[in-house]
Amino acid sequence: MRILVANANTTEAITEVCAASARAACSEGTEVVPATPRFGPAVISTRAENAVAAHALLELLAEHAGSVDAVVLAVSHDTALDAARQVMPCPVVGMTEAACLAAHMLGARFGLVTLGATEMYRELIARHGLSARLAGLAGVDVTPPQVLADPDVATEKVRVAIAGLVEAGADSIVLGGAAMAGMEPRLRDLSPVPLLDGIACAVRLAEALVGLRPAKPRTGTMAAPRGRAVSGVSPALAALLLG
Amino acid sequence: MRILVANANTTEAITEVCAASARAACSEGTEVVPATPRFGPAVISTRAENAVAAHALLELLAEHAGSVDAVVLAVSHDTALDAARQVMPCPVVGMTEAACLAAHMLGARFGLVTLGATEMYRELIARHGLSARLAGLAGVDVTPPQVLADPDVATEKVRVAIAGLVEAGADSIVLGGAAMAGMEPRLRDLSPVPLLDGIACAVRLAEALVGLRPAKPRTGTMAAPRGRAVSGVSPALAALLLG
Amino acid sequence: MRILVANANTTEAITEVCAASARAACSEGTEVVPATPRFGPAVISTRAENAVAAHALLELLAEHAGSVDAVVLAVSHDTALDAARQVMPCPVVGMTEAACLAAHMLGARFGLVTLGATEMYRELIARHGLSARLAGLAGVDVTPPQVLADPDVATEKVRVAIAGLVEAGADSIVLGGAAMAGMEPRLRDLSPVPLLDGIACAVRLAEALVGLRPAKPRTGTMAAPRGRAVSGVSPALAALLLG
Amino acid sequence: MRILVANANTTEAITEVCAASARAACSEGTEVVPATPRFGPAVISTRAENAVAAHALLELLAEHAGSVDAVVLAVSHDTALDAARQVMPCPVVGMTEAACLAAHMLGARFGLVTLGATEMYRELIARHGLSARLAGLAGVDVTPPQVLADPDVATEKVRVAIAGLVEAGADSIVLGGAAMAGMEPRLRDLSPVPLLDGIACAVRLAEALVGLRPAKPRTGTMAAPRGRAVSGVSPALAALLLG
Amino acid sequence: MRILVANANTTEAITEVCAASARAACSEGTEVVPATPRFGPAVISTRAENAVAAHALLELLAEHAGSVDAVVLAVSHDTALDAARQVMPCPVVGMTEAACLAAHMLGARFGLVTLGATEMYRELIARHGLSARLAGLAGVDVTPPQVLADPDVATEKVRVAIAGLVEAGADSIVLGGAAMAGMEPRLRDLSPVPLLDGIACAVRLAEALVGLRPAKPRTGTMAAPRGRAVSGVSPALAALLLG
Amino acid sequence: MRILVANANTTEAITEVCAASARAACSEGTEVVPATPRFGPAVISTRAENAVAAHALLELLAEHAGSVDAVVLAVSHDTALDAARQVMPCPVVGMTEAACLAAHMLGARFGLVTLGATEMYRELIARHGLSARLAGLAGVDVTPPQVLADPDVATEKVRVAIAGLVEAGADSIVLGGAAMAGMEPRLRDLSPVPLLDGIACAVRLAEALVGLRPAKPRTGTMAAPRGRAVSGVSPALAALLLG
Repeated sequence: MRILVANANTTEAITEVCAASARAACSEGTEVVPATPRFGPAVISTRAENAVAAHALLELLAEHAGSVDAVVLAVSHDTALDAARQVMPCPVVGMTEAACLAAHMLGARFGLVTLGATEMYRELIARHGLSARLAGLAGVDVTPPQVLADPDVATEKVRVAIAGLVEAGADSIVLGGAAMAGMEPRLRDLSPVPLLDGIACAVRLAEALVGLRPAKPRTGTMAAPRGRAVSGVSPALAALLLG
Repeated sequence: MRILVANANTTEAITEVCAASARAACSEGTEVVPATPRFGPAVISTRAENAVAAHALLELLAEHAGSVDAVVLAVSHDTALDAARQVMPCPVVGMTEAACLAAHMLGARFGLVTLGATEMYRELIARHGLSARLAGLAGVDVTPPQVLADPDVATEKVRVAIAGLVEAGADSIVLGGAAMAGMEPRLRDLSPVPLLDGIACAVRLAEALVGLRPAKPRTGTMAAPRGRAVSGVSPALAALLLG
Repeated sequence: MRILVANANTTEAITEVCAASARAACSEGTEVVPATPRFGPAVISTRAENAVAAHALLELLAEHAGSVDAVVLAVSHDTALDAARQVMPCPVVGMTEAACLAAHMLGARFGLVTLGATEMYRELIARHGLSARLAGLAGVDVTPPQVLADPDVATEKVRVAIAGLVEAGADSIVLGGAAMAGMEPRLRDLSPVPLLDGIACAVRLAEALVGLRPAKPRTGTMAAPRGRAVSGVSPALAALLLG
Repeated sequence: MRILVANANTTEAITEVCAASARAACSEGTEVVPATPRFGPAVISTRAENAVAAHALLELLAEHAGSVDAVVLAVSHDTALDAARQVMPCPVVGMTEAACLAAHMLGARFGLVTLGATEMYRELIARHGLSARLAGLAGVDVTPPQVLADPDVATEKVRVAIAGLVEAGADSIVLGGAAMAGMEPRLRDLSPVPLLDGIACAVRLAEALVGLRPAKPRTGTMAAPRGRAVSGVSPALAALLLG
Repeated sequence: MRILVANANTTEAITEVCAASARAACSEGTEVVPATPRFGPAVISTRAENAVAAHALLELLAEHAGSVDAVVLAVSHDTALDAARQVMPCPVVGMTEAACLAAHMLGARFGLVTLGATEMYRELIARHGLSARLAGLAGVDVTPPQVLADPDVATEKVRVAIAGLVEAGADSIVLGGAAMAGMEPRLRDLSPVPLLDGIACAVRLAEALVGLRPAKPRTGTMAAPRGRAVSGVSPALAALLLG
Repeated sequence: MRILVANANTTEAITEVCAASARAACSEGTEVVPATPRFGPAVISTRAENAVAAHALLELLAEHAGSVDAVVLAVSHDTALDAARQVMPCPVVGMTEAACLAAHMLGARFGLVTLGATEMYRELIARHGLSARLAGLAGVDVTPPQVLADPDVATEKVRVAIAGLVEAGADSIVLGGAAMAGMEPRLRDLSPVPLLDGIACAVRLAEALVGLRPAKPRTGTMAAPRGRAVSGVSPALAALLLG
């Protein structure tokens, strides 16, 4: 099975980190295919960057349409998730949605911890219709560079945040963002409930979907586009939209 | 006051129709500035096209940043609305959101009628957090060409759909999509409740916002981007993202 | 355009303050018509007073039916809003609803700050179906007299409350109640996000509605009453209810 | 135990019908005290009438404050329910809220059937926060006079409506409005699920509340008003508001 | 009237305490019939124990089917409530649901205070569809033995928790769990809002339902089982399931 | 990997059908371990049977605790799901929850079709917090025997029901109940959107969870019971509850 692990920003180093996580998490026999968009934001941290990245990501996916069995969006914003599902002939999984869905199977309610602001995650989980079992979100006031500079301090702050979410009723914790994923080995023993890394969840759920061999919708908003005329996009994406 | 009426597809004729609606609806002294993206879909009817159009629309808006007092997104999907709000220094109004907000001031609940499928509108209104007062959506099984070919038949079908929504408790009806807007003069007398055209509502609410002179957020997810590095976008958009 | 600015309590001084705010906020060419009920509470601070004020307010509006283009309810409880919409031939806008609707166009989520208790605002926003994008409410423990006696202390307390709401995800802040409106000039520079004054929002949105020339519903719960027999009310209101 | 059965319209005949229902439903030892407002609508069927009736009803209740053990609001709109709860020293029960609460104890979900439009009931149940277990509402197209003229036809129409609600998942049916209550004996055997009459439910739940001897709130929005100055109301109501 | 007060754990002493509460709360003429399951958990504090207790409780109820007028489930988890309603020929009331329903009639919103964790109550109230008017839950970090050892300390902690819920908007407080019920006399004067004991509420509401003489549903998920073959259960329960 | 496929009724034939489905759906290398409770309902179709089956199912699972890597509950009611998650040391997946979660990854909204009544599924999906993306439920008026007797008629009725759900916005269809699963091969080509069989989804998602190696919660409502005394249960379950 070949799973495309598609970064949505243009930073190759992040693609590599995500691919390594995916390889560590996948089943034997799964091949991880890393990919980076040819344009767009170096890192996504605003709504406008996310919108540009959506276009870039769709072009990236279009190049691999038909040659992979599933796609994992290696971006915590689940950028372009619905559009990618419509346009691709194979299952597409978003890392934050995947972690939230896995959390549904591990307990009654879940929390999410991230570095920095939580607003985008609150909005994303609401848009996914998955707020009902969300116990809370915690944003830890640490930057990724600070994590590298003083990992013990950062780890302790995150541990406290996790403890607060557990107190609020979380039976598991989604780690929001790539920086959090890197902290997982340190956190695992410090957390009283399971931690969910988005890349790992997405890869395993993508494998599960491939195993289910779902038919492609032939109607509705997830049916493959046909006969759509779009200018200024890559030939591969244009071809997908033409059908 | 100068209001940018920004189409999100590349079809100039639709831009012109929307601009004409905007001019018919605006206050004396308001100047309507029509604009069309330089790339993207000819018409948006899939999720992937909407994602590409979001990028194209942001580039279009960036060209006018600082030279207009407000922006009306002349696209019923409210494409890129949040990103546009963040990136632009002036108020940005989406036509479907505007019509729904106006409906809140005209009665208890509202309905929405459109030609074709309603799913995208249901999703959009939910994402806007405005479902609580939605009495229902009705999709009329008529295509825009059929409207032109036999307007009486189309009008009668829409009239029946409106009557059904009113029966379900709608005190006003949002007309979803450009094709519906064109039918408004014929429908006005046939509807027992007020009809809301998205372009008209958006223009009037944009004027209202300009009059309120709201400050630009300095923090949070709507604060102007600063120092963001994004490749492969127009110089104007790149400049806005740099801050 | 003539806009009735209708207070719902019997304190003329408050009517005058609201009318002054309305005049400061309205478009050129808009005439503000202040009005005060002939009976009811001096100030509304209980549910029972609000119920009595609803009756008094409807009598007040009935006197102006046909002679104004729109009505702004100058009362933060949006007293009798739905009944006023049904009975009046012109648009009616409530100041808190208006501020919340304007907030929808300025960001993703909004907060509300007020002096004293927040419970009535929580309930009101829920009843309006506008809770989905509410980030939080903050009640500042300061009375209007204390605001006058020591404005710096009061301002600082409100500033802290606003900062808390912004931390909780608010992209704009609705100022709840007349006392808050008076503090707006001091607060404007201290707030990192835009502040929304109910009277200003209501006046501008009322102008927008008048510009849209919406038809009056001919059926449903917002259609004008006909043939209703009500004793013990003013001749003007009795006439409106008779149709 | 003395229970005030307070009509909210001025039609004595309706007061008598409600009082008779209350007497038929109450426990041995309960005394039913019927009461009719001195002003207001003959029948409530618009939002404005409901607002006027709220004032009239509060004046009516104020006359009995201290001399009754509980109040039943004999009006299907639950007019002024929250204000009455705040102002009265004893429990106050609304007939529609009571029927919905009783329905919660008889099954998973419930329906509501009424003559005429359902919109006001949908809104009322939502305002009460009781929509989660509402399976549906059905408005039967029959007027009260038609019920009297041809009861068999009316009964059959209601029976069909009830069957539809049961099909939609209702385990019990709330009868909305006084006219429905009169039909209950005919309907009882025709309905596959229990029927809930608002007056009967309200009387029995009022008795239950009296038996629980709940303390009066000393703070919050349900605490008794103190020191409120309100002009143009009856001396009894003015006294209650003064505290 | 005979009301079965059915404990769901096997601890007779708790049955006796609940029966005493029920006798103190019931109307004159009501006979309280205490009952304890023959197997199951000594105390329910996990999900698995609750599941086992559901079976045991149904067997217990089956023994009394036909010989009591109503059932009160004397367990704060409202264990097996829906199943008991379906299988029994008389009304069945759960103590936590009953207290929440009573709270609806005493104010706008309510809170719940308990000793220990609140998660199970949050879930239960959500499952009952009664979260809309829930102002908050407070878990006090005191064990029942500590309550006995140092009641003043425990009472003070609970008082602080109640004050917090009132601050958050609660107009009444549901006392969650048997241990809380025992503290009610001490708390009554310390609370600014009414306290609701589950057993008392359940007994009074059960009496109210009996007075309403509701028909048993003949269809749907609350109709009595017929022809069901179940092995390994008591003869009485097997008989009820056979119909 | 060993996955326990645990039936919740006592009918061995159904266990075998589910085990066969599981074997057809699982990955290479997964061993399916079928199991049937020693007591309880022959088929679950009432709330009381479901409650008894919960106890029986927990006893069944307890026998396999430690000897399997995951559990699939082969019962469309997701009987005892939360309790099983708490008590077992390995992941536990419910077949209806699993199908709904898979549906989240295949489109925007999903529908559910079943033979007979839909009420239990509506309730179950709401309890799982997964109603937000539910487009609708359809109950087909066909019994399992009728499916066997005239499969073409039954298939056509189900096809029509699926078409209706797709019209209502479903991008995929959950097949509710064992009888539906058997119809899947016939339906696959007739459905315009993918069909989701609960057993297949549960097995694949169970494999995914095992691959993620989630830690067992050490606190909260999903932590393993310790020191619980429960009489009248099997030694294996008693041991698990003792910890």
